[in-house]
Parts: sequence; C-alpha cells; structure tokens
Amino acid sequence: MTQENTEISILTIGDELLIGQVIDTNSAWMARELNASGFYVKRRVAVGDNRDEIWKALDEESAHARIILITGGLGPTADDITKPLLASYFGTRLVINKDVLAHVEHLFKNVFGRPMIERNKKQAEVPESCTVIHNSRGTAPGMWFEKNGRIYASMPGVPHEMQGIMKDSIIPTLLERFTTGAILHRTLLTAGIGESFLAERIEAWETALPPELKLAYLPNLGMVRLRITGRGKDERELDELLTTQFEALKNLVAEWLVTDQDDTLPKLVSRLLRNSSKTLATAESCTGGFIAHLLTKEPGASDFFIGSIVSYANQVKKELLSVKEETLSQFGAVSEETVIQMTKGALVALGTDYALATSGIMGPDGGSPDKPVGTVWIAAGNRERIITHTFSFRHDRLLNIELTANHALNLLRKLILGIAR
Amino acid sequence: MTQENTEISILTIGDELLIGQVIDTNSAWMARELNASGFYVKRRVAVGDNRDEIWKALDEESAHARIILITGGLGPTADDITKPLLASYFGTRLVINKDVLAHVEHLFKNVFGRPMIERNKKQAEVPESCTVIHNSRGTAPGMWFEKNGRIYASMPGVPHEMQGIMKDSIIPTLLERFTTGAILHRTLLTAGIGESFLAERIEAWETALPPELKLAYLPNLGMVRLRITGRGKDERELDELLTTQFEALKNLVAEWLVTDQDDTLPKLVSRLLRNSSKTLATAESCTGGFIAHLLTKEPGASDFFIGSIVSYANQVKKELLSVKEETLSQFGAVSEETVIQMTKGALVALGTDYALATSGIMGPDGGSPDKPVGTVWIAAGNRERIITHTFSFRHDRLLNIELTANHALNLLRKLILGIAR
Repeated sequence: MTQENTEISILTIGDELLIGQVIDTNSAWMARELNASGFYVKRRVAVGDNRDEIWKALDEESAHARIILITGGLGPTADDITKPLLASYFGTRLVINKDVLAHVEHLFKNVFGRPMIERNKKQAEVPESCTVIHNSRGTAPGMWFEKNGRIYASMPGVPHEMQGIMKDSIIPTLLERFTTGAILHRTLLTAGIGESFLAERIEAWETALPPELKLAYLPNLGMVRLRITGRGKDERELDELLTTQFEALKNLVAEWLVTDQDDTLPKLVSRLLRNSSKTLATAESCTGGFIAHLLTKEPGASDFFIGSIVSYANQVKKELLSVKEETLSQFGAVSEETVIQMTKGALVALGTDYALATSGIMGPDGGSPDKPVGTVWIAAGNRERIITHTFSFRHDRLLNIELTANHALNLLRKLILGIAR
Repeated sequence: MTQENTEISILTIGDELLIGQVIDTNSAWMARELNASGFYVKRRVAVGDNRDEIWKALDEESAHARIILITGGLGPTADDITKPLLASYFGTRLVINKDVLAHVEHLFKNVFGRPMIERNKKQAEVPESCTVIHNSRGTAPGMWFEKNGRIYASMPGVPHEMQGIMKDSIIPTLLERFTTGAILHRTLLTAGIGESFLAERIEAWETALPPELKLAYLPNLGMVRLRITGRGKDERELDELLTTQFEALKNLVAEWLVTDQDDTLPKLVSRLLRNSSKTLATAESCTGGFIAHLLTKEPGASDFFIGSIVSYANQVKKELLSVKEETLSQFGAVSEETVIQMTKGALVALGTDYALATSGIMGPDGGSPDKPVGTVWIAAGNRERIITHTFSFRHDRLLNIELTANHALNLLRKLILGIAR
C-alpha cells in the first residue's frame, strides 16, 4: 500500500463544537495515536448536528481520504441524528443488535445500577450493514462501514469511550489491513531563545535537510519545541537518517536545550526528582495550585511530591510559610524577598528536599505603576541554595498562570541539574 | 441579509494539529465569540502546512460559506507557507508594508528589547491586494481579502494575538457589514440525573418546542448542561419565546437544577461566596491543587479564596491538617473519617468560613480489592456542619481528578445554599 491509501480524515459531529461550548480534544488524541501507528491524518473537519451538512461532509471527505473516522452524534437523546443518517448513507436500515442490547442491559443492571428506560434500548440499534464495534466503556457501539473502497468508522464522542474503541479495535484493525510506510518523529524542547533567533541559528542545517525530513517549530508557553518528522519506506534507514540529523540539531541548540525527548516539563522534572529520590513541595501564590496540579495529574506523583501550600492570602504566607510581616510591608507580596522566604518556609513546613515558590500579579486587576499586571517572581531552592527569576508577562490571566508555572518548573530543572546561572 | 450570507467556515492551518501535538482551542474561542455576535459557524476544518491542501481547502470552504476565517501559518519561520500561498490565491504578490514594518521594529526595540534580524522583517510582508489588520499583540499582521463575493480573513495562530485581532477588528467589521438575524441561547446545568432520564423527563416539552428553538444536551464531568438555541428575525420576540420555554424547562428539572446561567461550577461557587462575604480554603489530596486552580484562574478569587493545603503525603495530612494517626491507620487516607478531619483541619489552619476536602485513588495504580481505583471521598464544611459524599469513578486519572473537583464544588454549593441532604 502506498502512503496515499492510508490517509485519514477525522470528522467530528456536534453543534457544541460550532458554538464553542466544548473544545475538541478528541481529534488531537486520535491524531496522536494514529500518527504513532504510522497513519497520516490529512484533514480534520467539524460539522453541526445537521443532516445535510453531515451528508455533504461524508461525500467530501470520501474524496480526500481513504479512511474516514467519525466521532459524536451517538448519544441516547433526541438531538442525535447520526445513526439514522448513517443507515441511509450506506443504503441500509436500523435494526436492533442483540449483542449490543445485551451489553446495554448488562451495564444498566450491573454497573449503573439504574433501571433501563425505552430510550436506552435505542442504543442497541445499528445500521444493518455495519460491523458492530464493541464499546466496553459505554452504551453506544462503534460501527464500521465500507463503501466504494473507503472505510468509515463511527464512534461516540465521549472521550474515554472513543479512546477505548480506537485502542481496542480501530487501530489494530487498520494495522492489520494496511502496511503503512514508516513515520518517525524526533522532538526537542528549547527555552530562552525566540522562534526567529532559533530559526536563524539553524537555518543552514534546516536548508540542507533531505526531503524525507521536515522540521516544525512549535512555540508554547514561552518555549519552542522543534520536531523533525521523517517519512520513508524502510524504518531502519529512516531511523538512522533521523538520528544523524537530530544529533546535529541538538549540537546547534545545546545552549538552550531543555530535553531531547517528546516530554512535557512536568514529566521531565518528575523524572529528575524520582530518579534522584528527592522530594518536592510548592508554595504557590499567583499560580494558585496549578503547579501542584501539573505534577499530580501524572501517575506516580506520590513518589516525590509531598504537597503544596497555596498561600493566596498574605495571612497564609505568614502563618504557614513563615514569611515575615516586615518583608511583606517593605517589599510587598510580589518580590524576590517574599518568594525566597516562601521557598524556605515550604522546605521546613513540608520537610522536602526541594521547594518552588511563585508570587505575581496575574490580572486583569491588581497592577500598579510600580508592579504592573504580569509582574512575577519565582524561586526554586533546596537547603543549600535558592535561585530566583522575575518576569513581566503581557498576556491574559490564564496564560500568565501557565507561563509562570512552566518557567518555575524550568527553574527547578536548572537547580536540580546544577546548571542555573 | 439572510442567515445564509453570514455563515462562517473556520480554517486552521498547521501540521501540529494533524499529529495531535497541540489541541485546537482557537476554533472554540472563535466560534463562541462569533456566535455571541450573531454569526453562525457552519464548519471547522484543519489542514496541514501543505500548499495543495490549503489551496483545496480554500476552494471548498468558499463553496460552503460566505466568510472564511483562517488561523495559523503566519509565524516567522521556514515551516510557514501560508502568506506566499495567499498572495498566489488572490492573484497578487508579496510586498513590504511600511506600517507593519514600523510596528515590528517598535516591538523589537521597545517591547522585546532584542535586536531585530532579517527574518523578522519578513513579518512585514503582505499580499499587495489585502487590507492589513493591525496586530497590537505581536509581529504577524492580520490580512483581509475579498474575492467572488467571499470574505477571507487570515490571522496568526498564537491564541492571544488571534483573539486581539478578532475582538478589535474582525468582529466589529463583520457586524458593520452584515445585519445578522438574532441568535439567543439559554443554558442551565443539572446534576444528579443521567442524560437518558433527563430526556425522558422533558420529552413532551421538547417535542412541542416551536421550530425556531433547538435543544442540545451537553453532558460533561458527571453533569448535564441543557441549551436552548433560538434563531429569528426579531430579537425581542425571540427573547420572549425563549424566556417562556426556558421557564417551563426549569420547572421540569427543578429537582436537579444547579444553575440557570451559562456558568461554570467554579464561577457559580465563587459568586455565592463573594456575595455572602464568606471565605474558603481547600484541603486537597487526590485533586492535588486542581480545585484551588479552578477557583484562582478566575479574576477576583482573592475576594474569598484564602488558600489550600495540598496534602498529597499523609505526613502533611497529619502535620498541617491535624488528621489523627489512628484515623489513617484504622480507616485509611481514603475514608469519610479522614476527609472530615481534613475539612476541620483546613478550617482551623487557614481560618476560613468554609473548607472543602478530597481524598481518593485516581489511578492507574494504588487500588485494592477493598478500595479500587476511582474510590473517592469528599467533604464540605463550615464550623457548624460537615457533609460528605463518596464516589466510585471508572475513568482515567485526569478525568477522575476533574470529576472529583466538580462534584466537590457541587457539594460546597449545596452546603452554602442549605440544600444538602
């Protein structure tokens, strides 16, 4: 099979996507998983719960791709129109599927512990010509259709149900059916250098890249991720080529290199702490617990993360983190002196090897001529040493919080690695 | 102008969207803002950094919509191909725009404080036939094109830059150009009733809805949001119709009604606390600071939020929240007794009117036959009363955290309103 034959279009259905009430995280998840298995997502399209629009989109995406993956529109309620439409589109009718009905009955009886109502039985209806895909995590089944050499798979829009169906059935089946070419990625993360400067720095190298390799710049939260994507027939050859070019790139950006893995900063810092058997606490004012969340949303955080004191009010900074009253009155809560004392206070109060502290004005209110909105102080320390940094962010509140958290984790990384200036 | 004439297609450009490295939050934001201004987003399409694909998508979306809003592909680096393509697509050539160049020079000199390099000058290149849209937040300008009765506006993909251009220029210009029909929404949030049961409960009402109104079910984090969308020519008439039907719906679901505003639970709880001048602290084990983050990411949280003790390790539960050693050894950290003591401890340690506590096993590891992954205890309390609830979630770690936080905020809401059982 050639590359063309395994091109995929993702079609998501739902009015909620077109009025912006929900963010489409399904497409990103699907794209990531498919890509890792060597499939190429060519397009992503979202349309509303409208019969004509869905029908037209199915026609159009069939012209763009060989495989069309559909999510959404399979819930039990009246705003769902996808299933009858699919029956018409594939020239068949809806019938009750006995296996699905038994599964729905089982879920209501043994898992939900609720009586089943008539409407729930409709979940067991499927277009007669489809191959039913078992949904172990919910009532709405997946459905697999083939028509004019195209494959169509429809899944519910509930993320963990869609993910189960993709992992258990769709991807394994696609892998059986298609021998894909190899797609390999190498990713590194830089900090402290802007996108343009980075581009200038690596221009000669980038221009000389062989055609199988493509470079992408992915700026995010004040840092720039660089990703080389390679496509080829022979995986081993491609891997060698990528390795050579990636090493060259790493040398060029060594000064700003954060990691040469496709890793987030929280995961990277977690690994450094876990591998060195050190513990961490955070003392968060302006980030309000967000750093603690970034660390604890990953499995195994209890290996190194002891806890956090979110000292939103000054009274908490004083009482639980032993920040001195005169420090607050002389320098203010957003100051180097305060974050240093917060760090010391967290090391003592939570008894950890490392501590991280943040204090800043996240906006939109609370700024002053002296300390405008976006002024931030961060500190990272252990028993021997405390290092600090200040920033002047110019963004909205949430982005200011995210940037502060990201830079704080990077400061901690430098402290742990002993590369802080 | 009729409705058809203000239909919008959003086209996002970038390989990073097709390999799932970033989640497309821009489209949701744009859809929300456009919708609030009476514009209807008909389709959302994402394609990669590929000339042919972008060209084809421009052709196709021109057939679907009157207005095509494009984001992405305008950065200063070599992976960006959108600008030359737009010049070709609209039959013109790239020229340096003096105003944009002056703005870029100003940013480098006065804001970034960095020397400007040759590559940055390219940011000032625009297709000669376009109307330049000022980007006050960054170097890449927006561009407005008209062709064959269609409007095309291109913006950078950096969220806060795109948002500035949309708010300052695109939406005001569209409002001037088009007299749109009215689009109004009414939204309510329910808790404690499944989607199917809700649908059964309101079926007769829903079936009798006039054709201008449409109901959508938006289940999220264990709760169901219901949204009525109305479209019509006369805003006042539509508003009256919506009000009547919304009141009827509210009566039908009164038992499960959380709010009749399009509000998130954190915002709702924040308002309740602010309006009653009460303070809150959280004592978070399994949610790891996520509740504190949900509350502090909204402006003005310091009005009521004092702080949090994220007691991830048991030692912190004991030392800072005064949870008794024998409670932990007899009942375990994930128990009703522990969350009650955590709540009391937070009320005392942080000196607040209310406190919220969570403890659970978020997975994927850490479960036991007795307390499987997903077992959660939450408590909400003040000096007079502490109420608790337990859950058995069956999802992945992040969703378990989000569900726990959401249900904890709902428990606090019930306590504040005095409607807890």
